[in-house]
Amino acid sequence: MFFEGSEKRVEVRVSASTGSLRLLDDRFWADVVVSAKAEILSKMSNEFCDAYLLSESCLFVWDDKLLMLTCGNTTLVDAVILCVDKLGQSAIASVSYQRKSEYLSHLQTSSFSDDLLPLRTKLSGVAYRVGHLDTHHHYLFASDTTCPVLEPKTNSELLMYHIKGAVADYLRSDKQSCEGIRHMLGLEVLFPNFTFDDHLFAPFGYSINGLWEDKYMTIHITPQEQSSYVSIETNLHSELIVFNIFSILLNKLNPQSWDVISFNREVVTDGFPPHFSVASCILPINDNDTIQFNQYQQLKNEVLLPELL
Amino acid sequence: MFFEGSEKRVEVRVSASTGSLRLLDDRFWADVVVSAKAEILSKMSNEFCDAYLLSESCLFVWDDKLLMLTCGNTTLVDAVILCVDKLGQSAIASVSYQRKSEYLSHLQTSSFSDDLLPLRTKLSGVAYRVGHLDTHHHYLFASDTTCPVLEPKTNSELLMYHIKGAVADYLRSDKQSCEGIRHMLGLEVLFPNFTFDDHLFAPFGYSINGLWEDKYMTIHITPQEQSSYVSIETNLHSELIVFNIFSILLNKLNPQSWDVISFNREVVTDGFPPHFSVASCILPINDNDTIQFNQYQQLKNEVLLPELL
Repeated sequence: MFFEGSEKRVEVRVSASTGSLRLLDDRFWADVVVSAKAEILSKMSNEFCDAYLLSESCLFVWDDKLLMLTCGNTTLVDAVILCVDKLGQSAIASVSYQRKSEYLSHLQTSSFSDDLLPLRTKLSGVAYRVGHLDTHHHYLFASDTTCPVLEPKTNSELLMYHIKGAVADYLRSDKQSCEGIRHMLGLEVLFPNFTFDDHLFAPFGYSINGLWEDKYMTIHITPQEQSSYVSIETNLHSELIVFNIFSILLNKLNPQSWDVISFNREVVTDGFPPHFSVASCILPINDNDTIQFNQYQQLKNEVLLPELL
Repeated sequence: MFFEGSEKRVEVRVSASTGSLRLLDDRFWADVVVSAKAEILSKMSNEFCDAYLLSESCLFVWDDKLLMLTCGNTTLVDAVILCVDKLGQSAIASVSYQRKSEYLSHLQTSSFSDDLLPLRTKLSGVAYRVGHLDTHHHYLFASDTTCPVLEPKTNSELLMYHIKGAVADYLRSDKQSCEGIRHMLGLEVLFPNFTFDDHLFAPFGYSINGLWEDKYMTIHITPQEQSSYVSIETNLHSELIVFNIFSILLNKLNPQSWDVISFNREVVTDGFPPHFSVASCILPINDNDTIQFNQYQQLKNEVLLPELL
């Protein structure tokens, strides 16, 4: 029943002289996704973006940027290399490649160190690990950017570990539905005006993409009791909106611990459940971009239930 | 510079009708140690016990019991199987096999699940994981005991992660010596009457065994900056003595987080540095033995230093 929910994440920006990524055909994106060992389940589009729901997470394509998240035992680095090769190195303005700490890293096809080898044959850049190896940590490779005047991106990720309570129970039940999950999480209320595309996996697991103008949101839920993990990412631009959404989801999903990763944005913790702020890091990665990492934990002793093996 | 400090641990008791384990010759123990991919560095003995210092941790042999800890990428399970085969299954009264969560589990030769396969071909028993996969956790296999009236063992382990401060700096310096480490940790004061056998590894790393009558102590230090780990284990019998020793070492080594694993013994936290008690578990594993797991963390936000890769 184990499923690795933790995602690998890549964001690729292309230079201004490159044609729109959205003009590339479906075959192109299907090849990219397959190279990561995932597949496209569905697609929705608006004026700004094509959003693909994948068998393992999601792919968003804007004119000048792509964002791809893959969980499970996928090989996202292969998709990055394929993109760079197909688009040509001169078309690449920047690449940001991340991995979160995995529940069972020894079951992965590659480690982050392994992934760095092919990345560094194609791109120069810096790589970091933030956070200790014995608890939540994040790996980041940031290529040297060739376009210094790139508009800074602002987006935030909330990663939740070990969800509990009524909503968590529902997500593990055989009574759940896409409509039911959207309703329990209040997604139509939290993301008004967004158009959604979601999918319920068997026996459980849930993914949703949302688009509203140039804004996106994506949520991926791995509810398995011993290794539950929920991620949400969005580029909604107001701190107050984003962290209010995060607070509401934290209170609904009641995770034992959670991390916030934030690009060029202050973290606001108002409304977060009672917590202990375990660790934090402010990491400038180039002239434009600063990432903040924050780890939180519920402020009460957890009585651990031994798992019989 | 990475070294996996986290230990695998086995305790084997033999039945009353089996001859003393101490009568087995040096060849026997050398074979056992080599099968785990370690080697014997030195040996000391008293009336009760032979204590071997290993290239990766330690081995203690009493008349009716052996205790072996191995760190790094050792294959302790192979030593367990060799012992069971050499001694004969009928000689085995009980086996308790543990692994702690590793810093880089994907670099290990086997996972705990892998280890269970050979163990279960030789021994019936129960296996547990205590603690979440994304943070400190402990695996335990406990064989069904064939001797219900075994005297309950009482011992305690303190595992420290990410040590900081003057003593930690000394342990990473080229000025350290065995005598200097014993003095800085105050081991002669904390363990009066004990005879010690210790070893300093190059470029750093330190192991010490201590014996006093039927009591033992063993400390293993992996001071490497990004993955420091210190373990201490002893069967000193008074809670007050043990946890006072643990408190003093915690204050000297100043770890970011620590775990206490205790067999048939209450944990006393008096004198521990200011901490948040993250999680706990009381696990009865048979009629005689109850293990307590406790995880602690320093009660202040840690500013993480990114590691350049």
